Amino acid sequence: ASSSDLIRATLFPGDGIGPEIADSVKQVFKAAEVPIEWEEHYVGNEIDPRTQSFLTWESLESVRKNKVGLKGPMATPIGKGHRSLNLTLRKELNLYANVRPCYSLPGYKTRYDDVDLITIRENTEGEYSGLEHQVVRGVVESLKIITRQASLRVAEYAFHYAKSHGRDRVSAIHKANIMQKTDGLFLKCCREVAEKYPEIKYEEVVIDNCCMMLVKNPALFDVLVMPNLYGDIISDLCAGLIGGLGLTPSCNIGEGGIALAEAVHGSAPDIAGKNLANPTALMLSAVTMLRHLELHDKADRIQNAILNTIAEGKYRTADLGGSSSTTDFTKAIIDHL
Amino acid sequence: ASSSDLIRATLFPGDGIGPEIADSVKQVFKAAEVPIEWEEHYVGNEIDPRTQSFLTWESLESVRKNKVGLKGPMATPIGKGHRSLNLTLRKELNLYANVRPCYSLPGYKTRYDDVDLITIRENTEGEYSGLEHQVVRGVVESLKIITRQASLRVAEYAFHYAKSHGRDRVSAIHKANIMQKTDGLFLKCCREVAEKYPEIKYEEVVIDNCCMMLVKNPALFDVLVMPNLYGDIISDLCAGLIGGLGLTPSCNIGEGGIALAEAVHGSAPDIAGKNLANPTALMLSAVTMLRHLELHDKADRIQNAILNTIAEGKYRTADLGGSSSTTDFTKAIIDHL
Ligand SMILES: CC(C)[C@H](C(=O)O)[C@@H](O)C(=O)O
Ligand SMILES: CC(C)[C@H](C(=O)O)[C@@H](O)C(=O)O
Repeated sequence: ASSSDLIRATLFPGDGIGPEIADSVKQVFKAAEVPIEWEEHYVGNEIDPRTQSFLTWESLESVRKNKVGLKGPMATPIGKGHRSLNLTLRKELNLYANVRPCYSLPGYKTRYDDVDLITIRENTEGEYSGLEHQVVRGVVESLKIITRQASLRVAEYAFHYAKSHGRDRVSAIHKANIMQKTDGLFLKCCREVAEKYPEIKYEEVVIDNCCMMLVKNPALFDVLVMPNLYGDIISDLCAGLIGGLGLTPSCNIGEGGIALAEAVHGSAPDIAGKNLANPTALMLSAVTMLRHLELHDKADRIQNAILNTIAEGKYRTADLGGSSSTTDFTKAIIDHL
Repeated sequence: ASSSDLIRATLFPGDGIGPEIADSVKQVFKAAEVPIEWEEHYVGNEIDPRTQSFLTWESLESVRKNKVGLKGPMATPIGKGHRSLNLTLRKELNLYANVRPCYSLPGYKTRYDDVDLITIRENTEGEYSGLEHQVVRGVVESLKIITRQASLRVAEYAFHYAKSHGRDRVSAIHKANIMQKTDGLFLKCCREVAEKYPEIKYEEVVIDNCCMMLVKNPALFDVLVMPNLYGDIISDLCAGLIGGLGLTPSCNIGEGGIALAEAVHGSAPDIAGKNLANPTALMLSAVTMLRHLELHDKADRIQNAILNTIAEGKYRTADLGGSSSTTDFTKAIIDHL
């Protein structure tokens, strides 16, 4: 294939274990003959004035142009005044929906074996407005902002996702009994969109009750849509049900059809460079990117190889109770392709 | 004993199943010869202008005078402009800390058998400020308020609780990586108090990570202290681990040494009056009230009778998979005293 047949995708290997697990993904994609050409971008060493962060303008332009990308963990430099790189990406690229599928992995035992959920998180506003203010010494306030535009947009995405993935229920998670105006507006928008999808069941669940039900019986839920902070909390809770952030994919959807898949775990500096990292979350995230590109055959092939390798249990990294190196685990996945 | 030897305690039987489960508590307390005289107060039928809610002024005065009370579920009347009765109680009585012990019940099987946690929730401010505002149509905001005074007060209570209950760790739960000013102030206050308790370990855990760790391995935690909404979410999550709100006690601590114990589950109008309700949460809450009064012998006796009845499994209400009536379950507890 000439390089003109290839789909260009941006790759942020990221920090810490990022380059190692990104390498795994590249190897598996190559072995599976995925028609993707990676455009690699690293986080810079100094603040780029055009992004006001360590992310370079070129790297953001690359995602805007390619419309698909994959991102490893990025450690935000310590010290005052640095915006989190994750948040910068969300804001600069207007990544309005964060989608995290979460399902029990066959053969990898946790207390739950019946998890099959999709959390869809509003990713741009809410409690993440960045607006905070000290009224007087000892009295501070933070603003949570909810807009009709962002709420409709993420609700629309959630219902569209449910419909196109054969899922039959959307639950909107909220605390509108306390935050009647903000969460109330979010619910109002969800209800408006729900009316356009009569074939999808719609329900509203208060966040505290939702968390209780999730740990009691996660099978009660299907697709969950919610404001930013609730999504942050609930997506991690759901990841915990099936084993943690090392196993769950994530994909950010932006305006103009951008899809930036990412591993949401940390950069694990303590094991970086030691060939010990688990590439599963990044690889499953890369699979969501393939699905976004409608490359379902490749996606299925790679996803099955990952799941079968984990189910077989012969090659597992230390975080999953095994003793395989990153490279051996990667080879095992390639053998399962 | 003359009635002057008795401790007077306020009792709000509440709505729905409230009167039935309050009756259970009264019977068990009588059988265990607890030296308490109940002063019963019901929610009114119209708004009391002095409380701006359906709670009567007299009932609040009763708690202020007795300094101890027990509260069943209260259904907030539907319709605009009614303040939640729970919230009214918290604000009017300045109930600054909500304490929820949460432990696995021997013999009652869930996915977890190793839960033994105390959640301590700031109960007066944060996301519950009630300050919300529509900027323009489609753009609304809510204010989260954190004060040094309320944060120090609840942190002090948490460390004092840990020390006096032989617990060795306090975890402050936060999202200060996003809400640096508000949650940052909360953490600063916790740190200040932690310094006065060098014998208690202190750690800070981000809320999303906390929820993930709680569902993976709740034994990692001991006492958790947190702002209002996080406490609302995490206390329900923890209740879910051991079987739900029907089994978990709760006690609110107020200025001036007030302790108002409460069942935090709903009023279950569908089964009200049918002798089907489970009085466990209210009874275990009443036990926390006895502990507050330093009546530890009575508290132990009643708590053991409840736990042994549940462990034995012969008498269980429908919500626990049994078919006992409220009165039979109550009799069984009395037999176990
Ligand atoms: C690192 C942090 C800022 C981030 C968030 O709160 O969104 C993370 O928890 C996530 O879920 O991606
Ligand atoms: C009913 C509701 C207002 C209340 C709260 O949010 O505090 C409840 O969930 C609780 O935990 O007591």
